[in-house]
Amino acid sequence: MSHLQQSFAVRFTYNVFFTEQLFANTNPLLADFFSQQATSEVRKKLLFVIDSGVVEAIPDLLTDITLYFAQHSDAVELVPDLMVVSGGELAKNSPDLIEKIVDTVDRYGIDRHSYVAAIGGGSVLDMVGYAAAISHRGIRHLRIPTTVLSQNDSGVGVKNGVNYRGKKNFLGTFVPPVAVFNDSDFLTSLDDRDWRAGISEAVKVALIKDKVFFEWIEANAEALAARDMATMQYLIHRCAEMHLQHIAGGDPFEMGSSRPLDFGHWSAHKLEQLTNFELRHGEAVAIGIALDTIYSNQLGWLTDADTNRVLTTLRTLGFSLYQPMLDADNSAGILKGLSEFREHLGGQLTIMLLQAIGQGVEVHEIDANRVRQAIATLREQEPTVQTLHA
Amino acid sequence: MSHLQQSFAVRFTYNVFFTEQLFANTNPLLADFFSQQATSEVRKKLLFVIDSGVVEAIPDLLTDITLYFAQHSDAVELVPDLMVVSGGELAKNSPDLIEKIVDTVDRYGIDRHSYVAAIGGGSVLDMVGYAAAISHRGIRHLRIPTTVLSQNDSGVGVKNGVNYRGKKNFLGTFVPPVAVFNDSDFLTSLDDRDWRAGISEAVKVALIKDKVFFEWIEANAEALAARDMATMQYLIHRCAEMHLQHIAGGDPFEMGSSRPLDFGHWSAHKLEQLTNFELRHGEAVAIGIALDTIYSNQLGWLTDADTNRVLTTLRTLGFSLYQPMLDADNSAGILKGLSEFREHLGGQLTIMLLQAIGQGVEVHEIDANRVRQAIATLREQEPTVQTLHA
Ligand SMILES: NC(=O)c1ccc[n+]([C@@H]2O[C@H](COP(=O)([O-])OP(=O)(O)OC[C@H]3O[C@@H](n4cnc5c(N)ncnc54)[C@H](O)[C@@H]3O)[C@@H](O)[C@H]2O)c1
Ligand SMILES: NC(=O)c1ccc[n+]([C@@H]2O[C@H](COP(=O)([O-])OP(=O)(O)OC[C@H]3O[C@@H](n4cnc5c(N)ncnc54)[C@H](O)[C@@H]3O)[C@@H](O)[C@H]2O)c1
Ligand SMILES: [Zn+2]
Ligand SMILES: [Zn+2]
Repeated sequence: MSHLQQSFAVRFTYNVFFTEQLFANTNPLLADFFSQQATSEVRKKLLFVIDSGVVEAIPDLLTDITLYFAQHSDAVELVPDLMVVSGGELAKNSPDLIEKIVDTVDRYGIDRHSYVAAIGGGSVLDMVGYAAAISHRGIRHLRIPTTVLSQNDSGVGVKNGVNYRGKKNFLGTFVPPVAVFNDSDFLTSLDDRDWRAGISEAVKVALIKDKVFFEWIEANAEALAARDMATMQYLIHRCAEMHLQHIAGGDPFEMGSSRPLDFGHWSAHKLEQLTNFELRHGEAVAIGIALDTIYSNQLGWLTDADTNRVLTTLRTLGFSLYQPMLDADNSAGILKGLSEFREHLGGQLTIMLLQAIGQGVEVHEIDANRVRQAIATLREQEPTVQTLHA
Repeated sequence: MSHLQQSFAVRFTYNVFFTEQLFANTNPLLADFFSQQATSEVRKKLLFVIDSGVVEAIPDLLTDITLYFAQHSDAVELVPDLMVVSGGELAKNSPDLIEKIVDTVDRYGIDRHSYVAAIGGGSVLDMVGYAAAISHRGIRHLRIPTTVLSQNDSGVGVKNGVNYRGKKNFLGTFVPPVAVFNDSDFLTSLDDRDWRAGISEAVKVALIKDKVFFEWIEANAEALAARDMATMQYLIHRCAEMHLQHIAGGDPFEMGSSRPLDFGHWSAHKLEQLTNFELRHGEAVAIGIALDTIYSNQLGWLTDADTNRVLTTLRTLGFSLYQPMLDADNSAGILKGLSEFREHLGGQLTIMLLQAIGQGVEVHEIDANRVRQAIATLREQEPTVQTLHA
């Protein structure tokens, strides 16, 4: 018996650009990107797949894209057929969309050195990223996130995925994009829920890693809730930066069991499913953060004062911190999220909790009764519920 | 406009083990592997997916596996449902098989730290590897190749894939296995075609990289054709070693346009398709090597003597070097392989040719008439065809 050992490293490099008016003829960002990527005289193709919600909000978008690449066609050839796909979680629940993209890749001869660009919220990016990742063993993928959540979190990371038979992200891969273009103009057309939802990911990363950033969010919670754009731009930039640093510094393809950025997520993923995706991912994360913050307080780790600061900040941002499905079936539904979370990560159950604001700590056990207590606290504090009983 | 730069490297490490009687109770190799991988007290699950051709050839295999893991169950828990899937290219042409594996992963709660093991030829390994790669964003995948081709080439590499609407490897990913177990006992039940087919990959890698290895193959061609096992074991070991070194030393996930290990493959991929996969991959590669060897000679790069050595070695191994589909439609069919090859690799057309035995060189243009001439040479030299005309 003998053996050969294989060992190699693969480097991934990409930029996250911050801009406005990405498709204005005078904005050279995209055109420059494609020129810099050009390696031979062969002009690369570029296929766009676009979130229907964005097209509805910005009816000129399709024309703008066509005009832009009519002017800037030196290094890239726009596939004239701009694909529009349903936005929101529906995009990840529709296997036929994957097939449609793969067929388009085939029809237009999009090769591994050509580009599939996605414009949209996290759902559309996740789905298109997956379709691009499996076609020809991976076509270059470019992301143009249009929600707060996708600009500061999901769109800058390395994961894609779709749901399968109702199971969240059951199919997917780890494949970094070749570039991300964050255009803050897209955010103006978001409805209030989507403007708000993504802020919870910034609260999350601040709570586990950076007290100063949390205090900045706390101080700016009202401005954020009032849709102040400059404040939002800073939040997104800082959150994206921390997200990128976390990935590069740790275990980018999550080969271990630890996943610190999933603080607040074990219950959030389950709540999304239990509410039939009525709750946005970011809204569910806000509740999940609140739950695990109270749980950390119950363990005696986080002070009462700090616990209240977290809850108050989330409420000032406009988040509702209770959802009746938390209590359904004596919380059996939400608690099932623990085993599903373990199963999805693999290995041992590993949950991030808070030792202090800005300092996460991992545990491998969660006590069901304590979770029920934390839920009770959220239920009792919930303003709407109180109103109903008034 | 500002930007953040992301850059990180991901390291992949795995062993290729060479053994005999892998599932004999006395062989500790597999059991030790799982013990060494164990990271927590949680016992990992292990799902087997097995090539029907192997099960037919070795009827005791399923029992052997069950008995082995009944004895060696400390670190791993065998999923009792051993999946048997159709072998050969059919495995890669059946989307329902992927679905069946994904559903089994779901049903048995196989997580990202558990294992999906595939036993079979390159086709089954490619298909199972793909199913494992997309489930939960990648379940640990273990390969037990059972053909010469999969033991010395496809099974030790980093690619998986399935065909889509008849297009070879249209869907797939780059995901290294966590381990490969090459058990030479499996080779005894191969029919002569499959014993022979994989040898062409060794000829290929020798021709572009290692004159000494080519001369060894040349000297041992008769022993290989006569199914001498010790000679085959050496061939597989050396070929696998060169394959691994090539991957580690170059561009493992093929982000560039160059793909030296695809010497002889542009026409081979197309011939497989044109013959409705009647030709084995390795058989098609032998023809592809012959074609590009003659083409290299026509360019004045490879001497007549060396050209004949290559063709004679392939024929001594038992390969047929002509297939009527090469001529179909005035060779339009096979020549279409050039553009499809370019499209699959992406970027500029890049084809490996021979400057000398053991020394490949890349070109970016292939002349259709010269290809037709090379085909004519193969047709004229083909013994069977001559017999038909006699
Ligand atoms: N890949 C990852 O690492 C990762 C991380 C976190 C979340 N996610 C996923 O992201 C998804 C949530 O993404 P999301 O919060 O961006 O929501 P979303 O993509 O579901 O979009 C929400 C709604 O906003 C619309 N919309 C998008 N951009 C708009 C705009 N500029 N103007 C008007 N409407 C617009 C969409 O059409 C949709 O109806 C979830 O599926 C979640 O699992 C992925
Ligand atoms: N992933 C890669 O990097 C890569 C590289 C080269 C080739 N490939 C792929 O590999 C495939 C070809 O693989 P292959 O040549 O191993 O053939 P195969 O997997 O198609 O198997 C050929 C036949 O042999 C049978 N068989 C397998 N093992 C047996 C055994 N031990 N005893 C008896 N019968 C057995 C199978 O059931 C099948 O009928 C092609 O699809 C090709 O594209 C992949
Ligand atoms: Zn999230
Ligand atoms: Zn091959």
